[in-house]
Amino acid sequence: MVIHDFFLTLFLILIVARILGEVFARFGVPSVLGELFAGVLLGSSILGLVEPNEVLKILAEIGIILLLFEVGLETDFDRLKDAGKKSMIVAILGVVLPFAFGLLTAYYLFGLAFDISLFVGGTLTATSIGITLRVLKDIHMENTNIAQIVIGAAVIDDIIGIILLVFIYDYSIAKEVSFDHTLSVTGMIVGFLILAPILAKALSYLIHKFHGKNLVSGYMPTIIISLILLFAYLSHLVGAPAILGSFAAGIALSRRFFLPFGAFLSTNEKLLDEVKTSMTPIIQMFTPIFFVMVGLSLDLSVINFSSSSFWVMSLAFIFIAFFSKFIGAFFIFQKSIRNNAIIGVSMIPRGEVGLIFAEMGRINGVLPNDIYAMLIFVIIITTVVPPFLLKKYFKVECV
Amino acid sequence: MVIHDFFLTLFLILIVARILGEVFARFGVPSVLGELFAGVLLGSSILGLVEPNEVLKILAEIGIILLLFEVGLETDFDRLKDAGKKSMIVAILGVVLPFAFGLLTAYYLFGLAFDISLFVGGTLTATSIGITLRVLKDIHMENTNIAQIVIGAAVIDDIIGIILLVFIYDYSIAKEVSFDHTLSVTGMIVGFLILAPILAKALSYLIHKFHGKNLVSGYMPTIIISLILLFAYLSHLVGAPAILGSFAAGIALSRRFFLPFGAFLSTNEKLLDEVKTSMTPIIQMFTPIFFVMVGLSLDLSVINFSSSSFWVMSLAFIFIAFFSKFIGAFFIFQKSIRNNAIIGVSMIPRGEVGLIFAEMGRINGVLPNDIYAMLIFVIIITTVVPPFLLKKYFKVECV
Repeated sequence: MVIHDFFLTLFLILIVARILGEVFARFGVPSVLGELFAGVLLGSSILGLVEPNEVLKILAEIGIILLLFEVGLETDFDRLKDAGKKSMIVAILGVVLPFAFGLLTAYYLFGLAFDISLFVGGTLTATSIGITLRVLKDIHMENTNIAQIVIGAAVIDDIIGIILLVFIYDYSIAKEVSFDHTLSVTGMIVGFLILAPILAKALSYLIHKFHGKNLVSGYMPTIIISLILLFAYLSHLVGAPAILGSFAAGIALSRRFFLPFGAFLSTNEKLLDEVKTSMTPIIQMFTPIFFVMVGLSLDLSVINFSSSSFWVMSLAFIFIAFFSKFIGAFFIFQKSIRNNAIIGVSMIPRGEVGLIFAEMGRINGVLPNDIYAMLIFVIIITTVVPPFLLKKYFKVECV
Repeated sequence: MVIHDFFLTLFLILIVARILGEVFARFGVPSVLGELFAGVLLGSSILGLVEPNEVLKILAEIGIILLLFEVGLETDFDRLKDAGKKSMIVAILGVVLPFAFGLLTAYYLFGLAFDISLFVGGTLTATSIGITLRVLKDIHMENTNIAQIVIGAAVIDDIIGIILLVFIYDYSIAKEVSFDHTLSVTGMIVGFLILAPILAKALSYLIHKFHGKNLVSGYMPTIIISLILLFAYLSHLVGAPAILGSFAAGIALSRRFFLPFGAFLSTNEKLLDEVKTSMTPIIQMFTPIFFVMVGLSLDLSVINFSSSSFWVMSLAFIFIAFFSKFIGAFFIFQKSIRNNAIIGVSMIPRGEVGLIFAEMGRINGVLPNDIYAMLIFVIIITTVVPPFLLKKYFKVECV
C-alpha cells in the first residue's frame, strides 16, 4: 500500500467517525454506533472507499489496548476485588449459557454438524468490552459499582473465551479434544493474571524514579506506550488476550492499587496526572480507528435477506444471544432489578470478538457461507441494540 | 505480520530509542543520533531484531509529517517571509552546487555512465530537514532567525529535490528529458504553495467554530490529525513532498499567520494552546519512530570497507557533499561568519531523503551495488557529523 493513499484512508476514517459520532450523539444515539456506522459506510457494504488492511488492523488493535489501559488506570482496585465474585458469576454464566444454548440449538434444533455447532456456540460466548465501555464512558458511568462488575466480567469473559477458542480450534483441526493444551493455556493465563500487576507495579516504580531526570523531551508518552505494548505482548505470549496485559498495566499505575510489600511503590498523584495528560490525546486518536474497523468488518453483502431459513435461524440465535447473556446477571442477587438488567444488557454486545470467532470458523472451512452470514447478522444486532437500551436505562437512573 | 509481533517491535523501537537518546544526550552527543543508532542497532547491521516493514514505514512517515506540522505551528510567518529571500538563495545553491559537482565528478573524474552520474548528483542534493530540526529543537534554538532561514531553505530544497527527482526519473526511464512533465509538476507545487495556507486557514476557522460544541470527547486530536493527513495527502497529490502539506497546515494554525481578508480568521490563543496540549504527546510518540527507521535503513552490510576505490570515491563525494551545501550559506551576506557557518552546516544532513534517491536509482537498475553502497556511506557521514558540529557551534554562541 502506498503511504499517501494510507494518509487519505486514515483521514476518512477519523473525520467520518468524528462527524457521524457527533451527529448520532445529537440525536440521542450512542456515539460509538456512529463510529461503527462510519466503518459500514466507508467499507465494502456501502461506499467501498476503505478496505481493512494490515496497517489499519494494527492501529485498531493499538486502539483497543489503549482503551483497556485507560479503563485499568481509572479502576479502583479494591472495588474491582469487591466486585470480583459477582463479576465471576456473570462471566461464567455469560460464557456457559450462550455456548450451551447455542451449541444445542444448532445441533438438535437445526440439525447442523457438530463442529459447525461448536463454532456457533463459541461465536455467541464472547462479550466485546469495547462497545459497552464506550457507552459507559459517554454517559460518565464508568466508575460506578455496576460498571466495575461489568468490566471485571467482560475481562474474565474474554479470558474464558480465549480458552474456549483454543479448545474448539484444536478440536476442529484434530477432531479430538486436547485437554493438555487447554490446561496449559489456562495455567499460563492464571499465572500472568497474578504476576502481571506486580511486574507492572515494579516497572511503574522505575518510571517514577527516572521521571524528571530526562534531557530528552517526550519521556511520558514514549515510556507509557512502551509499557503498554510490552504487557500486551507478554499477555499474548502466555495465550491471554492482549487487552488483559494493557488492563493490568493500567491497574498497576492507578491511584488505588497497592502491593502488600509496602507503600514506597505507591503511585504518585502528580505522576498519575501526567500519565493521563499525555495519554488521553493518544487514546482519543487511536480508539475511533478500532470502532471504525469493527464497522468495516461487518460485511452486510454476505447476507441473503430474502432467505426464510436465514430469518428463522437468525431470530432464534438473536434470542439466545440476548437472553443467555442477560440472565447471568440475575444470579448475583443484587437488590435492584434495574441494576441487574443494566449489567445483563452490558454483557450482550459481541462486536469484534464474535467476528474473530466466526472468521476463524470460516477460514478453517468449518462454517459454511450461509451459517457465517447468519452469525454476522446476529453479531450486528447484539452490537447495535444494547447501547440504545443502556443509554435509556442509565438515563432513567440518573434523573 | 502478526499483530503481537508488531507490539514487540514497536516496544523495542520506542524503548531503545528513548534509552539511547537519553544516554547519548548525557555524553553531550545529540539525542537524535542516539535514535538513529537505535535503528542501526536493532536493524540488520547489528542485532537483526527489527526489519523495516510497511507498517513501520507508515508510522515513521506520520512521525515526520507531524514534526513538520509542529515546526509550522511554531513558525513566525512574518519572519519566515523575511527569511524567504535568504532561504531561497541557500536552497537553490544547496541544490545546484551539490548536483553539478556530484554529476561532473562522477562523470568526468570517475568515468561513470551519465545516468549513474545523474543519480549520484541527485542523491547529494536533498537536505533532510528532520535531523537538523531535532538538533535545533534539542538546544531550544528553533525560533531564532538562523533557524527560520534553515527551515525555509530545507523546505524549498525538498521541493526542488522532488522536481529534480521527477526530471531524473523520467530521463532514466525514457532516456530523454521530459520538460513538460517537470514543468507541470512545478506548476502544481507552486499553486499548492499559494493555496494551501489559505485553505488550511479557512479550515482552521471551521475547527475553531465547532470547538467547544462537541458532545463526543477527543475533538482536538482527531480533528487536527485529520487536517494534517488531508494536507499531507493533497500535497502529495500535486507532486509535492507530504511534509510541505503538514508544514502548511501548521503555519495556518500558528499564532502569527494572518490572511489579507481580515482578522476574523485570526487564530485564537486558547485554541492554539489546546492544539499544542493535545498534539505534543502524539508528536512525541511518533517522531522517534521516524529516526529509528532512518537508522534501520542505513544498512552497513552493503559496504565493502576493504576496497580502496570505495574509499577514494567516498572521500571525494563526502567532501563534495559537505562543501557544496556549506558554501551556499555564504552567498546570503550575513554579517556574522559564524551564523553563515551554522546555516551551512545545518543544510548538510542528507538522511532519509538521500536514501530515497539512492534507493530509487538502485531499484531502477541504474545504480550498481558498489556505487549504491558508496552513496549510503556518504549519506551516513553527512547525517552523523553535522549534529555534532551544530551542537558545538551553537553552544559557543549561547554562552
